[in-house]
Amino acid sequence: MYTYRMRIAYDGTRYRGWQKQKNTDQTIQMIIEKELSHLCESSVVISGSGRTDSGVHAFGQEASFRVKKELETERVRKELNKKLPDDIRVLAFTEAPEGFHARKSAVGKCYEYYVDLQDKADVFSRRYSYHFPRKIDVAAMREAAEYLKGIHDFSSFTDGKDIDDTVRTIEEIQIQKEKERLILTFYGDGFLYHMVRILTGTLLCVGTGQIAPEKVKEILLSKDRRQAGFPAPAKGLFLKEVYYEERG
Amino acid sequence: MYTYRMRIAYDGTRYRGWQKQKNTDQTIQMIIEKELSHLCESSVVISGSGRTDSGVHAFGQEASFRVKKELETERVRKELNKKLPDDIRVLAFTEAPEGFHARKSAVGKCYEYYVDLQDKADVFSRRYSYHFPRKIDVAAMREAAEYLKGIHDFSSFTDGKDIDDTVRTIEEIQIQKEKERLILTFYGDGFLYHMVRILTGTLLCVGTGQIAPEKVKEILLSKDRRQAGFPAPAKGLFLKEVYYEERG
Repeated sequence: MYTYRMRIAYDGTRYRGWQKQKNTDQTIQMIIEKELSHLCESSVVISGSGRTDSGVHAFGQEASFRVKKELETERVRKELNKKLPDDIRVLAFTEAPEGFHARKSAVGKCYEYYVDLQDKADVFSRRYSYHFPRKIDVAAMREAAEYLKGIHDFSSFTDGKDIDDTVRTIEEIQIQKEKERLILTFYGDGFLYHMVRILTGTLLCVGTGQIAPEKVKEILLSKDRRQAGFPAPAKGLFLKEVYYEERG
Repeated sequence: MYTYRMRIAYDGTRYRGWQKQKNTDQTIQMIIEKELSHLCESSVVISGSGRTDSGVHAFGQEASFRVKKELETERVRKELNKKLPDDIRVLAFTEAPEGFHARKSAVGKCYEYYVDLQDKADVFSRRYSYHFPRKIDVAAMREAAEYLKGIHDFSSFTDGKDIDDTVRTIEEIQIQKEKERLILTFYGDGFLYHMVRILTGTLLCVGTGQIAPEKVKEILLSKDRRQAGFPAPAKGLFLKEVYYEERG
């Protein structure tokens, strides 16, 4: 068996997320599996590094799969790109070592969230950012973000149910303001269901003064979802990169 | 009478261009006039700095109009933005000196053209660039661009008919390559119908070796449209800025 790895970009706008589901064929995994199985002349199952929600985008999702036949990677990448719709694109397609698994082998991930603070949303990025026309205290947001860094039980920051392990490590949260655009960057070992969106929503509540920065520590300790903020909309969120070795 | 000036950004994808036309209400001018007339409680006619074709975008189109009533500029800008669709946005709205006219007072313009050279188009900029997956000789394009600079009769580079004056001045053409993206920037006193798109198409033909750089000088002198290249598609073109004073 051969193991292959793909890096994939997609505009998630018109999809029901990454993960295969019943009752729809509009998931990114399903669309790629269908075309890839056709090209490989066998039924291929791909494993993504993780799910992305309906409407969430990726600059660099990773997926792996095993197949009996050896593939000409660059030819398959190009053929696959021809078959895939305009909003899904395979950036890289390489052979991976035996045992490589896009989810299990991952050691970290980076997500970016884009917020447009202008009174009216920018016409060219309106599909790819959350329009939040409010005055924002970035220093307060950065202060709150400090409490979120480290190893914590993030039960307050997920909409996931019945999860055994809600402990995650956030290595870094960067908050940059470029004119009227806010970019939040999250580095961590992994993120729970809706976690990046709830972290963003909560930090935006801190930005507007609705939640005090130090209150974020209490929210973490409460392990109560109702204490945290709203989940920021999917369209502003991008899976930027998946790491398979510790970042330098 | 009061004179006002607006700077406007738009995503031209779903419009039939800037200019008012019979048989359609899907032009940017008509949509703005309708909402502005409503806000001003009188029939307002706006003058754009120039037409942009169907599908062409603007980072900074300029328009002016005269009206009897004095307006609260910031309030009107915000109200207008609320009424206008998501793909049209008024960036600035200011009172202008008596006699100011967005087209007649303009002394120069800057257009940008985006080309995506990757084998498959980038998923996030596919609506806003021309996908041209070819090997390109940028040095040859820059050499050809030198012949286009200066004061010339650009008859070979327009699809316009019955124009008295086909002489224009191109001050500068910049061609930048950032990874697999090509950005062509044109500065000039004004551009004829389809001129930027035909210049871009011709320069791309030079880039692929189909037209020799020095041939561009002959094309100019021939005053024969058939000698020049294809008009590059509208979706890659942006009206970036209109100048009312000489650039510094």
